[in-house]
Amino acid sequence: MAAIETRSEQVCFGGSLGLYAHDSAQTRTRMNFAVYLPPQAKNGPVPALYYLAGLTCSEETFVIKAGAQRLAAEYGLALVACDTSPRGLDLPGDSGSWDFGVGAGFYLDATESPWAGHYRMGSYVNEELPALIEANFPIRGDKRGIFGHSMGGHGALVTALRNPQRWQSVSVFAPIANPCAVPWGEKAFGNYLGADRVRWEDWDASLLIKAKAFPGKILVDQGEADQFLEKQLKPEALEAAAKVSGQALELRRHAGYDHSYWFIQSFVADHLAHHAQALK
Amino acid sequence: MAAIETRSEQVCFGGSLGLYAHDSAQTRTRMNFAVYLPPQAKNGPVPALYYLAGLTCSEETFVIKAGAQRLAAEYGLALVACDTSPRGLDLPGDSGSWDFGVGAGFYLDATESPWAGHYRMGSYVNEELPALIEANFPIRGDKRGIFGHSMGGHGALVTALRNPQRWQSVSVFAPIANPCAVPWGEKAFGNYLGADRVRWEDWDASLLIKAKAFPGKILVDQGEADQFLEKQLKPEALEAAAKVSGQALELRRHAGYDHSYWFIQSFVADHLAHHAQALK
Repeated sequence: MAAIETRSEQVCFGGSLGLYAHDSAQTRTRMNFAVYLPPQAKNGPVPALYYLAGLTCSEETFVIKAGAQRLAAEYGLALVACDTSPRGLDLPGDSGSWDFGVGAGFYLDATESPWAGHYRMGSYVNEELPALIEANFPIRGDKRGIFGHSMGGHGALVTALRNPQRWQSVSVFAPIANPCAVPWGEKAFGNYLGADRVRWEDWDASLLIKAKAFPGKILVDQGEADQFLEKQLKPEALEAAAKVSGQALELRRHAGYDHSYWFIQSFVADHLAHHAQALK
Repeated sequence: MAAIETRSEQVCFGGSLGLYAHDSAQTRTRMNFAVYLPPQAKNGPVPALYYLAGLTCSEETFVIKAGAQRLAAEYGLALVACDTSPRGLDLPGDSGSWDFGVGAGFYLDATESPWAGHYRMGSYVNEELPALIEANFPIRGDKRGIFGHSMGGHGALVTALRNPQRWQSVSVFAPIANPCAVPWGEKAFGNYLGADRVRWEDWDASLLIKAKAFPGKILVDQGEADQFLEKQLKPEALEAAAKVSGQALELRRHAGYDHSYWFIQSFVADHLAHHAQALK
């Protein structure tokens, strides 16, 4: 197990908000992550809720902008937030656009050169990060929730749907719900996974959910004034797929809300409540 | 009245979070500010709570990091946040250090060259900004609260103490409570107000409070692990001064908390409650 570097630890709502770094075996880069430990963690291991952020974000975005620590302290849940891709590699083409490469790892395991050796955010989030967290923090390994926003909503859904034995609850904000059918997903999957679209299906929440339901209810919040709703997100595909497999899914559409963290902070309390109930 | 430019308006907790700009007559620069209108403002004017940020911050810091919109929506309070100084002037010496000049206006009216014509954040906060806000938003002119952090805690205290007829409530996080006696204050006051220390006294909360109490109780939160506590903040001076004039003051010291917005977000609910009660 790689050593963890503590970049900062500060008291917040009676618990501890820490920023850390470690050498990842999956990405073969230095990876940053954030952990919020609620005050209850002083008395023993607590369940953890993992958050996956969207395009261009980092491990700090959620803890700064979502207002979730207050609720995590109330429920006795840890929060874990990771970065959105490896950084510092300087691979050809990794920094030319904001929707691919750096800041846009799409939480999958790339198979194509030059990405395959580093862009393994799928295994990083599902395996390496929880193992690191559970070995080094007072956090339980048998109670894990996962949620995310936009690209991270896609990531949370596919991580939970592909590994339901490892994740007990899932919820999402404005997810890229059907990446095989939208420009963001086509660009990322084409580059990371190659031209054969059959191989993309293993990383598409709507296709996964159609084949097999996740054991628990999935909560989805979506703003109706979201600038990416029609072209990139397609929650209706997720809703239709859930009907096929009988997936319990609550899709809430909110008039006036856009794609921002103002939207996320407005509804984050319902997500923490959703996970707290499942992880108790 | 100068025109207001709307930079963005987004839905948040059922209300509207907006970033705006205008040409200020006091600073003779373009000034940015943020306004959160709670959902109650759709039904008529609401009281407003003005926030003054600390060194290096901007009008965005508080609305992004403090988690206050949730509470403002609950209480029906507007939030108004301004910048920490004029910007873009390129005056000699205005950008060489983070604790003076740009991002460090200290919420006073400078009398010394080259600052006197622009660094008038005292009158800007007390008069120009409320007049602009009350003429252009559904915000009442007879119910104003003010609070702030660090340099902005100093600003909130002196604004309320100098103008108690204009402000009905005040509270602060980790204020520079006795600027005449600490390095940050000596540097700023010496440059903005000149060498004669007698003229500094009109802008020092501890000296003002000793001379005359504010009509309402003042709430002060201070982290005991604050790296600036002993050298720059000196809440004990404020507490001692309050005893002289009989000022009602509640100074709460919190073990483990530092100077950051993790500290502010942990206690912001008590501040909103404090102001909501006074502004009802």
